[in-house]
Amino acid sequence: MLRFLSGGESHGKGVTVILDGYPAGVSISIAKINKELSRRQVGYGRGVRMQIESDSVEILSGLKDNRTFGSPITLFIKNRDYTIDRLDTILAPRPGHADIAGGLKYNIKDLRLILERASARETVARVAAGSLCKQFLLDFGISVFSHVLSIGSVRVNSSKVSLEKIPYLAEKSELRCVSVSAEKKMKALINEAQKSGDSLGGVFEVIALEVPVGLGSYAQWDMRFDALVGAAILSIPAIKAVEIGDGVENSSKPGSKVQDEIYYKKISGFYRKTNRCGGVEGGITNGEPLVVKGYMKPIATLRRPLASVNIISKKVSKASKERADICAVPAAGVVAESMIAYIIMRSFLDKFGSDNLNDIKNNYKNYIKRLERY
Amino acid sequence: MLRFLSGGESHGKGVTVILDGYPAGVSISIAKINKELSRRQVGYGRGVRMQIESDSVEILSGLKDNRTFGSPITLFIKNRDYTIDRLDTILAPRPGHADIAGGLKYNIKDLRLILERASARETVARVAAGSLCKQFLLDFGISVFSHVLSIGSVRVNSSKVSLEKIPYLAEKSELRCVSVSAEKKMKALINEAQKSGDSLGGVFEVIALEVPVGLGSYAQWDMRFDALVGAAILSIPAIKAVEIGDGVENSSKPGSKVQDEIYYKKISGFYRKTNRCGGVEGGITNGEPLVVKGYMKPIATLRRPLASVNIISKKVSKASKERADICAVPAAGVVAESMIAYIIMRSFLDKFGSDNLNDIKNNYKNYIKRLERY
Amino acid sequence: MLRFLSGGESHGKGVTVILDGYPAGVSISIAKINKELSRRQVGYGRGVRMQIESDSVEILSGLKDNRTFGSPITLFIKNRDYTIDRLDTILAPRPGHADIAGGLKYNIKDLRLILERASARETVARVAAGSLCKQFLLDFGISVFSHVLSIGSVRVNSSKVSLEKIPYLAEKSELRCVSVSAEKKMKALINEAQKSGDSLGGVFEVIALEVPVGLGSYAQWDMRFDALVGAAILSIPAIKAVEIGDGVENSSKPGSKVQDEIYYKKISGFYRKTNRCGGVEGGITNGEPLVVKGYMKPIATLRRPLASVNIISKKVSKASKERADICAVPAAGVVAESMIAYIIMRSFLDKFGSDNLNDIKNNYKNYIKRLERY
Amino acid sequence: MLRFLSGGESHGKGVTVILDGYPAGVSISIAKINKELSRRQVGYGRGVRMQIESDSVEILSGLKDNRTFGSPITLFIKNRDYTIDRLDTILAPRPGHADIAGGLKYNIKDLRLILERASARETVARVAAGSLCKQFLLDFGISVFSHVLSIGSVRVNSSKVSLEKIPYLAEKSELRCVSVSAEKKMKALINEAQKSGDSLGGVFEVIALEVPVGLGSYAQWDMRFDALVGAAILSIPAIKAVEIGDGVENSSKPGSKVQDEIYYKKISGFYRKTNRCGGVEGGITNGEPLVVKGYMKPIATLRRPLASVNIISKKVSKASKERADICAVPAAGVVAESMIAYIIMRSFLDKFGSDNLNDIKNNYKNYIKRLERY
Repeated sequence: MLRFLSGGESHGKGVTVILDGYPAGVSISIAKINKELSRRQVGYGRGVRMQIESDSVEILSGLKDNRTFGSPITLFIKNRDYTIDRLDTILAPRPGHADIAGGLKYNIKDLRLILERASARETVARVAAGSLCKQFLLDFGISVFSHVLSIGSVRVNSSKVSLEKIPYLAEKSELRCVSVSAEKKMKALINEAQKSGDSLGGVFEVIALEVPVGLGSYAQWDMRFDALVGAAILSIPAIKAVEIGDGVENSSKPGSKVQDEIYYKKISGFYRKTNRCGGVEGGITNGEPLVVKGYMKPIATLRRPLASVNIISKKVSKASKERADICAVPAAGVVAESMIAYIIMRSFLDKFGSDNLNDIKNNYKNYIKRLERY
Repeated sequence: MLRFLSGGESHGKGVTVILDGYPAGVSISIAKINKELSRRQVGYGRGVRMQIESDSVEILSGLKDNRTFGSPITLFIKNRDYTIDRLDTILAPRPGHADIAGGLKYNIKDLRLILERASARETVARVAAGSLCKQFLLDFGISVFSHVLSIGSVRVNSSKVSLEKIPYLAEKSELRCVSVSAEKKMKALINEAQKSGDSLGGVFEVIALEVPVGLGSYAQWDMRFDALVGAAILSIPAIKAVEIGDGVENSSKPGSKVQDEIYYKKISGFYRKTNRCGGVEGGITNGEPLVVKGYMKPIATLRRPLASVNIISKKVSKASKERADICAVPAAGVVAESMIAYIIMRSFLDKFGSDNLNDIKNNYKNYIKRLERY
Repeated sequence: MLRFLSGGESHGKGVTVILDGYPAGVSISIAKINKELSRRQVGYGRGVRMQIESDSVEILSGLKDNRTFGSPITLFIKNRDYTIDRLDTILAPRPGHADIAGGLKYNIKDLRLILERASARETVARVAAGSLCKQFLLDFGISVFSHVLSIGSVRVNSSKVSLEKIPYLAEKSELRCVSVSAEKKMKALINEAQKSGDSLGGVFEVIALEVPVGLGSYAQWDMRFDALVGAAILSIPAIKAVEIGDGVENSSKPGSKVQDEIYYKKISGFYRKTNRCGGVEGGITNGEPLVVKGYMKPIATLRRPLASVNIISKKVSKASKERADICAVPAAGVVAESMIAYIIMRSFLDKFGSDNLNDIKNNYKNYIKRLERY
Repeated sequence: MLRFLSGGESHGKGVTVILDGYPAGVSISIAKINKELSRRQVGYGRGVRMQIESDSVEILSGLKDNRTFGSPITLFIKNRDYTIDRLDTILAPRPGHADIAGGLKYNIKDLRLILERASARETVARVAAGSLCKQFLLDFGISVFSHVLSIGSVRVNSSKVSLEKIPYLAEKSELRCVSVSAEKKMKALINEAQKSGDSLGGVFEVIALEVPVGLGSYAQWDMRFDALVGAAILSIPAIKAVEIGDGVENSSKPGSKVQDEIYYKKISGFYRKTNRCGGVEGGITNGEPLVVKGYMKPIATLRRPLASVNIISKKVSKASKERADICAVPAAGVVAESMIAYIIMRSFLDKFGSDNLNDIKNNYKNYIKRLERY
């Protein structure tokens, strides 16, 4: 079973992640991992820290000559501002963060000890591990990418852009947005928020192509692929809603306009002309592109802090300030790619077996061939 | 650890669920379980089957004199139409269901064997187990209820109804809707869909009151309470989006209008005047009501069937017809209550310990007292 | 992932087990399940109950025309003496049982509620589920069987009996012992214990043939095949020690006499002439027969009861009496077969993939072929 | 839930372990962790490497001012001989190791890539994490220690040494043996093995004092405390048998001489005068000391190598040689202490709740008080 644990604080020594269950025989590009780490850092409207960091991964175990051999892979990403021992204690919890709930739960009076781990810095571990998952999936032609659908009130209409074109357009854009004109408006909105000491959220979309039919199961609630998607996306800090396909819009339409009719072509088999269900039916991937949207709330740390309470004096206080971004939707999309790559790979190994790339490839080919004869 | 497995097909002997890890010393009302089962069955726009069924639970293990004693609880809900051996094979997969993806995955040629388990009949197990979770939670003053926010294009504005009033209004309504006038329009829409052989989806909201601060954790992605919510709700058949608090709307607003400012009162402690985050911050419950929305697509089985393909002949065919509802949003809300009750209880036991009600109550009281002195 | 939960008390309605993750397309013989249930009941020295019971399984879900289709399989085994509501409360805990530890843990004052689930009756669920695992494994030529090595102080020397012959000899013996003369002495010992109101334990051995090389992993502690064996065998009531191969004896020998030297033959590949390690090296199955021993303590319920204490009065009391066996080692061996079959199948599916027998067979063949070319 | 993952090879950069679910508010002594690491390294008959290493832990996350705060704890233990890139490939698998089974499983042709992770070096992660568990348990008065019962054919009779005295005697002994005269014979045996190029195994015993009654459960097979013990001990490299209490010996005795009779004393409650069951009855800890034995086979790497086969040429070859110990039973005992501390702590948190030391202590006190009134 593919699984990972991570450790590390925002201003500690760094972030470590151990990925267990990764098959042997996969060639890994360290440059690709670092590329993903930098994709997580970019985005118009990010704070100063993103420039400080310039994350780079160190491999502590699991690779020899850049190939996996079935042993756990340990990745370490050093923090450039390892200052935790010098930082002030925090007594005024920030609304929208784990500060006060965490302080109460763990019986901690310096809220810095809460926010250090509750920080989005933790997601660097997911992106590093996710890059390994992506590299595995690419061996099977499966690609996972994302783009930004909206920042604050500015939305882009991407319905006319072909899925294949999206990654190319998104990678060229500072906001990972496929429309140059929409991006312009988004930037203006970010500039405005910057001036007023405010922050912004938005919506991203993750797409995975060539996901095979048959991942997940309706047999138990926790085996449904949709449940994995729900957990993966809502586990990302600040994401408060997740949607598969056009799930929000479809809830208000009649059934005849929502379900995707089924067609057949020799060799490639069953297919749909529409994909409103986003690639999952009845808890199982159906062979169409996986399309998932995440709704991000605005960054909770504001330059003009909100009302709060000092946890010692219990007196009204402004929320503590931390260096923060104004908008991080593009980065959240990159984190979401990693989580989606992880859950696809996990389900993939459950279905096609494990241990080494060679055997898994054979098993996968057998399956594809069997489908052709179904 | 609280966990459950269920088994059973739509037209098999019945549905069984085994709930393990449930504490000793809890008084269980069988009538309450049956009440929940019937709540799952009602709703304007349900098919004939809902009248046939009139589900009733049989206790196969885990209770003596209606009290739990720490052993696994086995519940059986008999199917009234146990006809699986006489039913026709199904060769034309229905769009929107697991039929074809399941057939390919499991290498099954009679699609009936897919839809029998992929059927929403499975959720009767969740409601039965969920009722046990609700009964436990009530011992701690935690209540979980739901209501319908929209059916198709008809939405109700419930923002002026107090949370406490919602369950009373919802229980009185055939569509679990707090507004009589909105319900009227919903019914009209359902009548229309019925006539045209179409179906409808909608949105429900689940609310849990008195959830203590501190469930879930930001320590690892899979410990976040939001991740559990995401998995729980998206695991329900036909639910394609899930939202915590006002997650969808908040993604388009500035941060200053989204975060919930923090206040303090003696004894009851920290609180908020708003609850836009829906009771979860930084992956942890924050002591405010848990508010979760589920977006349901329209029922996939239509009286006027959609285009499909015969899996043997590979020729174009109308999708197979099964007896079906026109709209099941109220029932989905009841299932969602069960899933939310289950994940709250699971996290609750993780936090406050296990084994018997007496000890857990003591532990819980200690915690509440400690919070008062924080 | 293959997993199961069971529920049910010793004198309740019956025992239910739900087995999830079992592949589609496996032909199941109900007669074989019942055969296993009766194998669990036999054995010289068993109590009256074994004759009362004559267990027989009812399939509640997961089979159509005796074939699996990928959905959870629910099995129910009715209790013939469903008398729990009429039975006396128990106040004097029996040494060697969960009675007092369970009473304290669950805060229960009628110890009957503890022993009803802590009873070995629970193992009927494992044998029923284990039979399904065995039937799957046989499709791959893997057989799992057991025999008795000792009862009390009487030991059999089975080292000269070939592994293939063991099941035939064991099935013919009332004590599942391969030596007629040893069995005679064992029976005499049992008769003696019967007379003196005492009980006996012993040692059984489980053997699995044709287990492929490569199950389990050294990558993490909880992935080691030995760890699974340890959990599986020590989870059986009254088993207090488990040994892989000649683990006990080997601990006192020099390394040169313990390790199994490695040889090679075309097509069949690497092999050993000895199997002191019992088929597991470095946490992985090595292709040799899996050989596991379980050490069972004597039955804890004695006709001449031991000293105990009344939990209400706190006064000295004789331990409560329950109908019981004098010796159940042969039955424990049958339960152990089931647990070993379960963990082999679980590891097998992890390695070779899941969902349906056809695909798994293809994957398995590929693997065997690849090994030939290694 | 308390859990950990580790990564790292024998001659890689080092070994990393992430421990998740550890409560906040525990004061940690780094010196104590290092002390445990050095306890793992000592022992008469260890190879050169043990002197090279002198392990020392680096904290990468989870501590501030040597206190935990509820976030994952990352520990790194540097390897002093980080030479993996310069080491020769290995083509002749060593009998008794994972070499050939791992090579076949992972489709790896340089067996060094197998043995690097299958190495006992991995256990340094367990001892580091285990030290954290021990430190937590000590806050509740629970101590875990070990001693050596036998090396090769030399056995010590420790039955007359009180449990409390064992740790003091064991710590003073190079072989962790409570008898000076037995230790002398053991050393002579080791010297002999050294001369003849052979190796030795033996038996260790782990004891935990003040384990509360009520850990584990008979409710499901995988919840039994014995099952956890079985997995924990058999997961240690080279351990081939595990015994709870006098499990091996008791299998040959009559029931009247095996079960531990039950007595009662005010305040301290129920107790036994004997502890043949080793502290576990019916799958639950019973409040008596936990006593577990592990049987270790001799070190598999011999200076006079055994017969093997070159995996490329398929020709007979001597097994490859690696620097190795002659006997490592004392060290295995230390690793076993760690694993036992881990499973006790895991079960303890399941029972008494989680998150912070303060709350857990309150819950624990409540439980002890309730037991007094039972």
